Amino acid sequence: MANEKKFVQAITSRNEDFAQWYTDVVKEAKLCDYSSVKGCLNYLPNGYAIWENIQKNLDARFKETGVENVYLPVLIPESLLQKEKDHIEGFAPEVAWVTHGGLEKLEERFCIRPTSETLFCDHWQKVVKSYRDLPLIWNQWNAVLRWEKTTRPFLRSREFLWQEGHTLHATYEEAEERTKMMFDVYYDFVTKDLAIPLIGGRKTESEKFAGAQDTYTIEAMMHDGKALQSGTSHFFGNAFPDSFDIKYLDKENNLHSAYETSWGMSTRIIGAIIMVHGDDSGLVLPPRIAPTQVMVIPIAQHKEGVLDKANKLYDRLKKHGIRVKIDDSEKSPGFKFSEQEILGIPTRIEIGPRDIENGECVICRRDNGEKITVKLEEIETKLEELLETIQTDMYNKASKFLNSHVYFANTLDEMKEIAKDKIGFIKAPWCGNSECEDIIKAETGGFGSRCIPFNQPKVRSKCACCGKDAEDIVVWGKSY
Amino acid sequence: MANEKKFVQAITSRNEDFAQWYTDVVKEAKLCDYSSVKGCLNYLPNGYAIWENIQKNLDARFKETGVENVYLPVLIPESLLQKEKDHIEGFAPEVAWVTHGGLEKLEERFCIRPTSETLFCDHWQKVVKSYRDLPLIWNQWNAVLRWEKTTRPFLRSREFLWQEGHTLHATYEEAEERTKMMFDVYYDFVTKDLAIPLIGGRKTESEKFAGAQDTYTIEAMMHDGKALQSGTSHFFGNAFPDSFDIKYLDKENNLHSAYETSWGMSTRIIGAIIMVHGDDSGLVLPPRIAPTQVMVIPIAQHKEGVLDKANKLYDRLKKHGIRVKIDDSEKSPGFKFSEQEILGIPTRIEIGPRDIENGECVICRRDNGEKITVKLEEIETKLEELLETIQTDMYNKASKFLNSHVYFANTLDEMKEIAKDKIGFIKAPWCGNSECEDIIKAETGGFGSRCIPFNQPKVRSKCACCGKDAEDIVVWGKSY
Repeated sequence: MANEKKFVQAITSRNEDFAQWYTDVVKEAKLCDYSSVKGCLNYLPNGYAIWENIQKNLDARFKETGVENVYLPVLIPESLLQKEKDHIEGFAPEVAWVTHGGLEKLEERFCIRPTSETLFCDHWQKVVKSYRDLPLIWNQWNAVLRWEKTTRPFLRSREFLWQEGHTLHATYEEAEERTKMMFDVYYDFVTKDLAIPLIGGRKTESEKFAGAQDTYTIEAMMHDGKALQSGTSHFFGNAFPDSFDIKYLDKENNLHSAYETSWGMSTRIIGAIIMVHGDDSGLVLPPRIAPTQVMVIPIAQHKEGVLDKANKLYDRLKKHGIRVKIDDSEKSPGFKFSEQEILGIPTRIEIGPRDIENGECVICRRDNGEKITVKLEEIETKLEELLETIQTDMYNKASKFLNSHVYFANTLDEMKEIAKDKIGFIKAPWCGNSECEDIIKAETGGFGSRCIPFNQPKVRSKCACCGKDAEDIVVWGKSY
Repeated sequence: MANEKKFVQAITSRNEDFAQWYTDVVKEAKLCDYSSVKGCLNYLPNGYAIWENIQKNLDARFKETGVENVYLPVLIPESLLQKEKDHIEGFAPEVAWVTHGGLEKLEERFCIRPTSETLFCDHWQKVVKSYRDLPLIWNQWNAVLRWEKTTRPFLRSREFLWQEGHTLHATYEEAEERTKMMFDVYYDFVTKDLAIPLIGGRKTESEKFAGAQDTYTIEAMMHDGKALQSGTSHFFGNAFPDSFDIKYLDKENNLHSAYETSWGMSTRIIGAIIMVHGDDSGLVLPPRIAPTQVMVIPIAQHKEGVLDKANKLYDRLKKHGIRVKIDDSEKSPGFKFSEQEILGIPTRIEIGPRDIENGECVICRRDNGEKITVKLEEIETKLEELLETIQTDMYNKASKFLNSHVYFANTLDEMKEIAKDKIGFIKAPWCGNSECEDIIKAETGGFGSRCIPFNQPKVRSKCACCGKDAEDIVVWGKSY
């Protein structure tokens, strides 16, 4: 039947055309599609369910650190957006403007929020009076809009989903600590729950967020060697609060500046999951974030007792808290396998007459295709263990890939050589001058500065570009 | 200290001025406030946490019925909004228009979604081909915008948070069944989790949603006797799908119309929680939805061992899965009590040196002020039982209020009499003519038709307004 074509035929080989492979996976797994609104996506059930699990796990981590959730308006008055100079310069060219409400022209334009620093500061200016009102550790899960010219599913779209955390503190040190803390939360979440290895560090001056004093970033390497900025935590110092005249009275009744941070992770991270773990059969989801962790597929389901046994297995796993589905449709087992594979469901259980006779079933791993025969009475514990093993193995595999694609260079010539032959990141010393960044990017065909990694010893080296003294090693890479 | 004023002094008496009481409670409990964007609210941590619990509980109920979550764009092209005639007439006067993207004027205007029927239909038109693609049972949690002229916290604002479910079916019957099913989900959720008694029924022709064939509604009675429409479920028949040319091929390869429903519940429901359960000390939250279910308040906390014992109690309750906080700040116990009361936290535990000596503590109920002495070793089970009791008692109390404020009338004169003297709802027969609705509303000073209740026997009666034959008893009331 036409409807039973193998999905895999619809997916371009990953090594043949990575970009097309990505598009095919997104489409065939029905994660999202383009809407009638240019540049805006429809997040479909399979894609949104991944986002829901990301929200759930990340939000729990936020709350452990004392974060409270709020919701601020979708609209920002033009006058408010303009209050912080760097910020408006960064965002003005890429916002959508509301000019009419109902049948009337508005006196002042509103933009649809591209990010909400200005709204938070505007509220805080009104309510923060005393040191007793601080700190404020707030976050919101919402959608923002930036009028991008090009669009790619999850990676770049005009509207995207994210969380934006905004915090206000009495001291510089406390705000700095919070910036670092949220970086740590992201790092921990992405490595542990998404099985994606990371390089974490500081952004250079030219790559910082508009208005921030420091931006910390987690950078992941996709299978094509390109970097994907996966989460950022910004330290604003008192630039924003001062622009908005947010001051508080300390215990001795002195008026003080306040200090601010913001931090965000978006649906881009779904793009990272696809491009780090996916293969030629489709998506491969880490068990901790997979909406479905195991698909039960009855074999020869018309034979007596098979469907009954498969359904009992389903019930047991569900009761045990494993996210399980059963495919008892009329499709052929081969078609069901393909479908489970393209959706990236971490395991499937095959159970047919012979298995039942032997009191066992077969678990097939999505990440490496391995098949394991398991006694039915042990299925809960064995499957649970296996899901943990898959999670670890996926991280280790991706980690090995990352580590084997980081190259070291001391000169621009060496960088150019590597950039010509290899995919991946280059570590090279840098003097701190943004002109050298521009030259390196241009000469290497797009290797921009990704970050200055944390926890690396200061070096006495020379800038790969200009030869002047360099204290920092920078990670360079092409990026999404 | 100025900071230690009793909150209750800031709250107007409920019987003195209900509207002001409501505003005071919202403000003093810090649930939300007005933003710099006219008509748009900031949902603050205390208010948003209630919404998060509503989302969690309601979403779980949705998913039990097979609902999948999605996210569709915030913008709707003007041409798309215009596809369904009744729909555009209903919404055109109250949407916000985006006319510029970045620095450029757009070729076509977009409105910020006031609701998303058109976006769902537009997507479905592209993807639905066969009976195999149906049903689609989708929902999204998002914010929508309607350019309202007047604003009241939670009850009416330009932007509000809600969920909008949209489903597409192969048959009329299946769609009708889903409409009813979601009505049942709302009814069950609001009565059980929010402890709010309801009258459920059908909307009259003139009160239906723009474009719907039938609208089912749950109506709650506020403490001032006014109705609050708390959730609606709409049956569209094939009006929308046909306008969007959504057709599917059945098993015999015949082209068929599809049938649609939508259903929504919004942050208005928080207004209902406030106005059904609140009292002169502030908010009273039903335990199942309360972000904090118990506040531990140490008495004479400077005495040796008190804080230690209070913290151990806190740990035990937390471990047991009860949503607990401890207030070990320097404020006086009286201030802490006021604060817990205004926030509507269902119980507080008072524990001081004498209690500790006796191996007990005191639980104070927020809903009726009752104090219960409990042995410390039994605290988990006793508290758990008590929270369930409070939930039930709150429902019963509200139910008694509702039932004692529903009046019966057979003529317009009787209705006017009741409307003059009483607060509450009036049940009266109606002929089905919308002119009679208008007359009744005008003559009674605002008693509009709230719904035609389900499960009431057909009557042989005469319309209270025109005296013609009436089959239905309608519930009439003033409304928010």
